[in-house]
Amino acid sequence: MTTHRPAGVHAAWLPPEAFRAIGSRRTLVHGAGLLVGTVHQEVEQACARYGGAVVRLEPRTAGEPYDGDGTFDLVLALSAPEPPLPGAAQVPACLRGEGRHPAQPTGDEGYTLARQGGVTVVLADAPAGLLYGLFHVVRLGESAFGGDRAPELHRPAVRSRMLDHWDNVDVHPVMGQVERGYSGGSIFWRDGAPRGDLARVRAYARLLAASGVNAVALNNVNVHATETRLLTDRLGDVAALADVFRPYGIRVHLSVGFASPVVLDGLPTADPLDREVRAWWAEAAGRVYRAVPDFGGFVVKADSEGQPGPFTYGRSHADGANMLAEALAPFGGVVHWRAFVYDHQQDWRDRSTDRARAAFDHFAPLDGEFHSNVVLQVKHGPMDFQVREPVSPVIAAMPATRLAVEFQVTQEYTGQQQHVCYLGPMWSEVLGFRPWGADAPTVAAVAAGGAAYGGGAEGGGLVAVSNVGDDPYWTGHPLAQANLYAFGRLAWEPRADPVAVLDEWIDLTFVPVVSGDPEPLRSTLHAMMDGSWRSYERCTAPLGIGFMVRPGHHYGPDVDGYEYTPWGTYHFADRDGLGVDRTRASGTGFAGQYPAPWSEVYESPERCPDELLLFFHHVPYGHVLRSGSTVVQHIYDTHFAGAEEAAESRRLWQKLGAGGLVEPALHARVAERLDEQVRSAEEWQDQVNAYFFRKSGVPDAHGRRIP
Amino acid sequence: MTTHRPAGVHAAWLPPEAFRAIGSRRTLVHGAGLLVGTVHQEVEQACARYGGAVVRLEPRTAGEPYDGDGTFDLVLALSAPEPPLPGAAQVPACLRGEGRHPAQPTGDEGYTLARQGGVTVVLADAPAGLLYGLFHVVRLGESAFGGDRAPELHRPAVRSRMLDHWDNVDVHPVMGQVERGYSGGSIFWRDGAPRGDLARVRAYARLLAASGVNAVALNNVNVHATETRLLTDRLGDVAALADVFRPYGIRVHLSVGFASPVVLDGLPTADPLDREVRAWWAEAAGRVYRAVPDFGGFVVKADSEGQPGPFTYGRSHADGANMLAEALAPFGGVVHWRAFVYDHQQDWRDRSTDRARAAFDHFAPLDGEFHSNVVLQVKHGPMDFQVREPVSPVIAAMPATRLAVEFQVTQEYTGQQQHVCYLGPMWSEVLGFRPWGADAPTVAAVAAGGAAYGGGAEGGGLVAVSNVGDDPYWTGHPLAQANLYAFGRLAWEPRADPVAVLDEWIDLTFVPVVSGDPEPLRSTLHAMMDGSWRSYERCTAPLGIGFMVRPGHHYGPDVDGYEYTPWGTYHFADRDGLGVDRTRASGTGFAGQYPAPWSEVYESPERCPDELLLFFHHVPYGHVLRSGSTVVQHIYDTHFAGAEEAAESRRLWQKLGAGGLVEPALHARVAERLDEQVRSAEEWQDQVNAYFFRKSGVPDAHGRRIP
Repeated sequence: MTTHRPAGVHAAWLPPEAFRAIGSRRTLVHGAGLLVGTVHQEVEQACARYGGAVVRLEPRTAGEPYDGDGTFDLVLALSAPEPPLPGAAQVPACLRGEGRHPAQPTGDEGYTLARQGGVTVVLADAPAGLLYGLFHVVRLGESAFGGDRAPELHRPAVRSRMLDHWDNVDVHPVMGQVERGYSGGSIFWRDGAPRGDLARVRAYARLLAASGVNAVALNNVNVHATETRLLTDRLGDVAALADVFRPYGIRVHLSVGFASPVVLDGLPTADPLDREVRAWWAEAAGRVYRAVPDFGGFVVKADSEGQPGPFTYGRSHADGANMLAEALAPFGGVVHWRAFVYDHQQDWRDRSTDRARAAFDHFAPLDGEFHSNVVLQVKHGPMDFQVREPVSPVIAAMPATRLAVEFQVTQEYTGQQQHVCYLGPMWSEVLGFRPWGADAPTVAAVAAGGAAYGGGAEGGGLVAVSNVGDDPYWTGHPLAQANLYAFGRLAWEPRADPVAVLDEWIDLTFVPVVSGDPEPLRSTLHAMMDGSWRSYERCTAPLGIGFMVRPGHHYGPDVDGYEYTPWGTYHFADRDGLGVDRTRASGTGFAGQYPAPWSEVYESPERCPDELLLFFHHVPYGHVLRSGSTVVQHIYDTHFAGAEEAAESRRLWQKLGAGGLVEPALHARVAERLDEQVRSAEEWQDQVNAYFFRKSGVPDAHGRRIP
Repeated sequence: MTTHRPAGVHAAWLPPEAFRAIGSRRTLVHGAGLLVGTVHQEVEQACARYGGAVVRLEPRTAGEPYDGDGTFDLVLALSAPEPPLPGAAQVPACLRGEGRHPAQPTGDEGYTLARQGGVTVVLADAPAGLLYGLFHVVRLGESAFGGDRAPELHRPAVRSRMLDHWDNVDVHPVMGQVERGYSGGSIFWRDGAPRGDLARVRAYARLLAASGVNAVALNNVNVHATETRLLTDRLGDVAALADVFRPYGIRVHLSVGFASPVVLDGLPTADPLDREVRAWWAEAAGRVYRAVPDFGGFVVKADSEGQPGPFTYGRSHADGANMLAEALAPFGGVVHWRAFVYDHQQDWRDRSTDRARAAFDHFAPLDGEFHSNVVLQVKHGPMDFQVREPVSPVIAAMPATRLAVEFQVTQEYTGQQQHVCYLGPMWSEVLGFRPWGADAPTVAAVAAGGAAYGGGAEGGGLVAVSNVGDDPYWTGHPLAQANLYAFGRLAWEPRADPVAVLDEWIDLTFVPVVSGDPEPLRSTLHAMMDGSWRSYERCTAPLGIGFMVRPGHHYGPDVDGYEYTPWGTYHFADRDGLGVDRTRASGTGFAGQYPAPWSEVYESPERCPDELLLFFHHVPYGHVLRSGSTVVQHIYDTHFAGAEEAAESRRLWQKLGAGGLVEPALHARVAERLDEQVRSAEEWQDQVNAYFFRKSGVPDAHGRRIP
């Protein structure tokens, strides 16, 4: 039997106890193929633990009846089996043969779930659907086997649900083994070589499948020398990982350097219109597909923060992306081409250049020029994963382009897995944002594409930077597992309530292993996590201004840290006020990159939402917010509140205590991080408040101490 | 013949051409011993090039007359040779035998120089004096052989003139091969092993001897694991270097870690009062002296910035230093114990703790407790080698302690050898400072000790952190060689005019190799260098406040870079004013650490010198300086001026051009650094001005552009 949890590694949201309901029952698994085998193996393992039984049936040709006539509690079957399954009478009528909605095929990954006559049935058109259906039953637990359940069709909202690993093969002298990684080393690579712990990778693949993720990029978008060779003599390492992800329905992708033909084979150019270069990439793609037939494709960060790209050769990003797309097309691969292109050597004196504008300015004019297997991967905000940004206007600007929206599960700017910061609510807000106003499509619809997008281009899906490392809790902070889980779940169903998703995660991760009443644990975790993103926002840069962090590592406060640097991330605070004027009327014009109504809303300091005010406007400290507070008093209030909320989180966790509700080691890990969170939140409070008090001279209305 | 200049390495202030006057004449070298051999070799080498001749005579016993009766232009002789030298008639009467001032022995390193009857004579009591006398003649060049010259006695003002190398044996992951090194790698170490380029070390030793330095510490005061082993299995590396320095009269010292007995031999403690620990150090010292009989001693940074020290064991710094002193005493070694002890984990909110106070608070109460072979090594200012600081009050507080004053030749805070910043005038100011007011001893007198110090303790000398690396120009910026030269010369003669010293350096380094009139070169260099320290001061943090640099590497402006950190280096700028109140009346009381009259001068914002105003006082932006300018206008004016001066330096250098006056490679190296200096000075100008304009709201009186 496969060990699903390597020794010493936390089970995250798939503890064996979560399979109790299935493992103590009788299950029929029907269907052929690798992923059906995975389903069977999962159930078999649960039964071995809890005394149930599983029968595996391979499909037969029509007219060849199945043997036996078993009685099952759960049927997991590829749709419309013919001849009828044994015990077919137990299968609900609505699901029997033509019984499932013919207008609603489950597609590659969907499934239908129902319960009738004492049998719970999952039917899917394709094996991956069966696997996702199984994990749905796991989430339901005992309730999957309660009263009747009308047939429910479940299909992922977006086709591609991808995690990008910013893992380096070689340890980078500055960025380490994992760029922006806060969970130890890489689970794939160590010191230039594969880590070789395939049991760990398998456990990871299983967790991802249970959350809904179906694609993984294995290396950092900043591609250094060793990583370039994943395309050539290190391809075997990639194939070995692909073999482990495959049984869980996950395709692997690679980040590639645009200059690879030059770096690897000494070609004189990487010009995307050069015939030799195009031949090189076609050959490279063919080689990769011979090793990994279901390879997903390439991820590319070009002309960005020092990475090479088509600009070097006077070509457009469409030229660059399409060249790679043509190389991949014969094999069904896609190019994820990142839109994160801006001038990172900006002159801070120049207030007309606006980093926020850059992606739109670069890419919107190219709409329609990208091949259909190019996915333009757009960060959700126009800057860089700040705790609060408006939605990127690029998302609404390219109806003829396949767009993916990129999130950051790794908490680079949201507490680096030292702070509790549950990001589900932020992602939910972004996904539900309607760039064209009420009744128009959401961001999620753009990522879904096609019909959801009112007939726009096919969608590119949702992508996120992983927060996983070789830490025993996977994510450094055990509660940061919830972000990984929520990303997958929201990518599958963007309309899901993020607090309900958190509840699911608690029910899987903690509740099955609790002794006693789980309610105190559940309520503590909700109290600590539900509002933690907004609490982190209160702790840090105010009102959407972003970046007030220590340059380089990006942890902890430094109000002026980026103020006089080339990175394009400024607040322009002086003794009178602060904020960036991005209006059309008097500023950089960024607000005009949005369609109505948002272009008008953001243009107006009165209509602009408080939380984005300083992103769009430079206002005096005394400016009265829609909330009724002045800007400077808001800064003081939120920072005092943020620090107090961190302290309250710690109090709650201490009160919960270790023992029956939380295993002592996990309790201690979280407690240690909470100590740091409290310290850090106080540092944020004092530095930000002192900075603005020194600058504005306005005392706190409540007379609290500002150092 | 020894090659004195390794291939590809700049000759600095000892080009072969500087020996033309000697090398084309007839010289007699008289005396025995290693250093007399060095003198002979130097002259011999010059003669080989320029056609002169040298005769070497070993001393003979009285009554055994010398052979021959040569005629010499130059006599370099150990004093009072008996029987009289051949050609004795040519030796000026005043120097013949008893002729030299019996009341003024030359001592270990001094010499008497005179010219009479067509013979230039250098007499010395000891071989080192003969070597220093030779280099004096080199400096004089042709003028050494002009008209008569009355006897001059030259003796170094301080006994110990030492360079500390902050070189790591192993490359440190953050600090590199040389901590705060701006001249490439170490000339001693590379990647954990000796570099093995002893020709380079020999060339370095020769340069140092010509400047007057007589001691070198071979490794960083931050002693890491590998460096600890210089005391044990790596002792051979030390002995090999000592062998190269010895012929130039330079002793080697080692920085040692206080915890060495624990680190190296697993002793349970490094408590300085522990019997085993004391035995360990005695044994270690014995081992070192068996390998290097003229070893200088230990340098120790204890209880400072994370280094271990006696505080760990509840012992005083006197306990710690005296233990090492006892170990070294039998062999004549000394301990250089650094007074750089402060709390580097200070809370920035706490305005009562003052890093400037720390050295005095820690060490002044220990005056009289240190053994006589302990030298307390005190940084010249109370902070850390800022471009402007008051003189450290520790220097005036410990009359019963042997004190060394420490400078920083490496330009950590003064432009990092990217900027021209000739530090001679700063050191000269410090050395001539009279802590007890007019007519009382100077700082130089304290470092000299004994009679100079009015009968105080013996002096500890002058120490500086080296700026040398494996760069072909030794110091990165070729003009930074002047700082190395000036340190040695000012340590020998603190009353020397630093501009005259600069002139000496120009006359040695450039003039001998110039084709054509050297005046344009000389005047250009003086225009660029004479005032460059004050120009750098104008560029950077104003009015003595210090630290407005990028944390970590300390290059370039970051006004708030250290403002909210634990390092104790603050400016407290708010919308009304800036500066640190260090008065007794209302501040940290630091001003009270000085004796009168300075305690009163610094206490008063009216009497405090402008250049230190913000070090001692927090004042409004509108405060009128003694110069008549307001503080904020002074900030603007100096920063505009500093940037303009950098541009003017570049113009002058460009005008000078490459070719006959300056070799093209050197010209290009300086030109490239000047480009960076101009860029950096503009960045300083704009950041500092923008920062204070944003904060104060006061416009520039002259309407210049502040971004």
